[in-house]
Amino acid sequence: MTGSLTVVGLGPGNPDQITPEALAAVTASTDFFGYFPYIDRLNLRPDQLRHASDNREELARAKAALEMAANGGKVCVVSGGDPGVFAMAAAVCEAIDDGPAEWREIELSVVPGVTAMLAVAAKAGAPLGHDFCAISLSNNLKPWAVIEKRLVAAATAGFVMAFYNPISKARPHQLGEAFDILRAQLPGTVPVIFGRAAGRPDEAIHIVPLAEAQGDMADMATCVIVGTAETRQIERIGQRPIVYSPRFLAESSQ
Amino acid sequence: MTGSLTVVGLGPGNPDQITPEALAAVTASTDFFGYFPYIDRLNLRPDQLRHASDNREELARAKAALEMAANGGKVCVVSGGDPGVFAMAAAVCEAIDDGPAEWREIELSVVPGVTAMLAVAAKAGAPLGHDFCAISLSNNLKPWAVIEKRLVAAATAGFVMAFYNPISKARPHQLGEAFDILRAQLPGTVPVIFGRAAGRPDEAIHIVPLAEAQGDMADMATCVIVGTAETRQIERIGQRPIVYSPRFLAESSQ
Repeated sequence: MTGSLTVVGLGPGNPDQITPEALAAVTASTDFFGYFPYIDRLNLRPDQLRHASDNREELARAKAALEMAANGGKVCVVSGGDPGVFAMAAAVCEAIDDGPAEWREIELSVVPGVTAMLAVAAKAGAPLGHDFCAISLSNNLKPWAVIEKRLVAAATAGFVMAFYNPISKARPHQLGEAFDILRAQLPGTVPVIFGRAAGRPDEAIHIVPLAEAQGDMADMATCVIVGTAETRQIERIGQRPIVYSPRFLAESSQ
Repeated sequence: MTGSLTVVGLGPGNPDQITPEALAAVTASTDFFGYFPYIDRLNLRPDQLRHASDNREELARAKAALEMAANGGKVCVVSGGDPGVFAMAAAVCEAIDDGPAEWREIELSVVPGVTAMLAVAAKAGAPLGHDFCAISLSNNLKPWAVIEKRLVAAATAGFVMAFYNPISKARPHQLGEAFDILRAQLPGTVPVIFGRAAGRPDEAIHIVPLAEAQGDMADMATCVIVGTAETRQIERIGQRPIVYSPRFLAESSQ
């Protein structure tokens, strides 16, 4: 009687960035769980049922989806971007880990997608061209002290950084504090990219030096990429500058 | 007379993981540059020309592609995975930065793709579910001392790690050394995932504890993911274990 649960990544929002694998998983499913703007992106058939929910109810949503799959449903949990990057795949795994034994028998699959930092990086050039890290700036699920420690560690070790969940109404100050922490570690000339709705009609990509980066340049749908001292910016006439992180690092630049 | 250059990511190898945007970029291009196995994945028309090359000639390939685009060509540079993650986008940007002024006038675009770590993570569950980093273990382009420093920084700050270019014939020892470095920082129980050809018929996903991880468990086409002390493994009957990194981190676990 056990059914299946597929966690699907729909990419950053441009329908042309959804993989055929993700669309096939949607077609094969009968019940859909997810944050309502993601569910709204799907062209569902009348026999496919929506169980949309608010964005802050991830664990409850994962449990409801697993319950239905355990009862034989063909369930799809929908994420934007990639489901494994600050999205629903981890919430589903947490629910399985803490849930009844039969949830472990469910046929679980995760369908990857283009995550936001890749789409934003592509619009800027190649800012993630060297070693990089992805950090959620939300302190809803971890202490701010841990985030501070990771920012310093990443900056001093030379990682490019991509910030997810940079800011929200309930957390208006974290991104500005993060920039202050980084300004103490990195040159003020380091490029910072604010990327919103990459690949969508309302796309907005802004590049500023770290010295001028401010928290209110982002909203909750923005992915922020901070370069390293090695990251370079190529100015162009009539086009946005190119930002890239060189693949090489000379002995002398350690 | 200036043409266009598009750097396209074809994803990890499963044709169902190529985005429609990438396929459209291929259709619109007339000349293709890239490592020959990536070019071989494309169903090109007779009027579309291949300029395949060896994998170690990235900068020369980028320059040849830019030269052709500067002369009016509709040029496509092909990468596996995502072109911005240890692939051709940075090489193209480096060539533009060091090249003649007219190369800056070329219409440059980068089309993102599903990068290897996302495809491997999806097969394992959600090992990248918390803050993570991506590190190239190749010391062809940076000193090994920098790699060692980044491994220690990432492990002590609590980042999950994904290793690209883990090993090659010319660099047979780096991955083993990386595991030795990490064993000095992390519990031996931390899950390590070796993912090869994720989503392809010859897919191979292996999970071992860090205490048992060895360099010869990977080849040059493997993406290796190393968890943190928080990463968990859920055992299942008749199915591969699920590996995930919880989204939350308690105050007490700093």
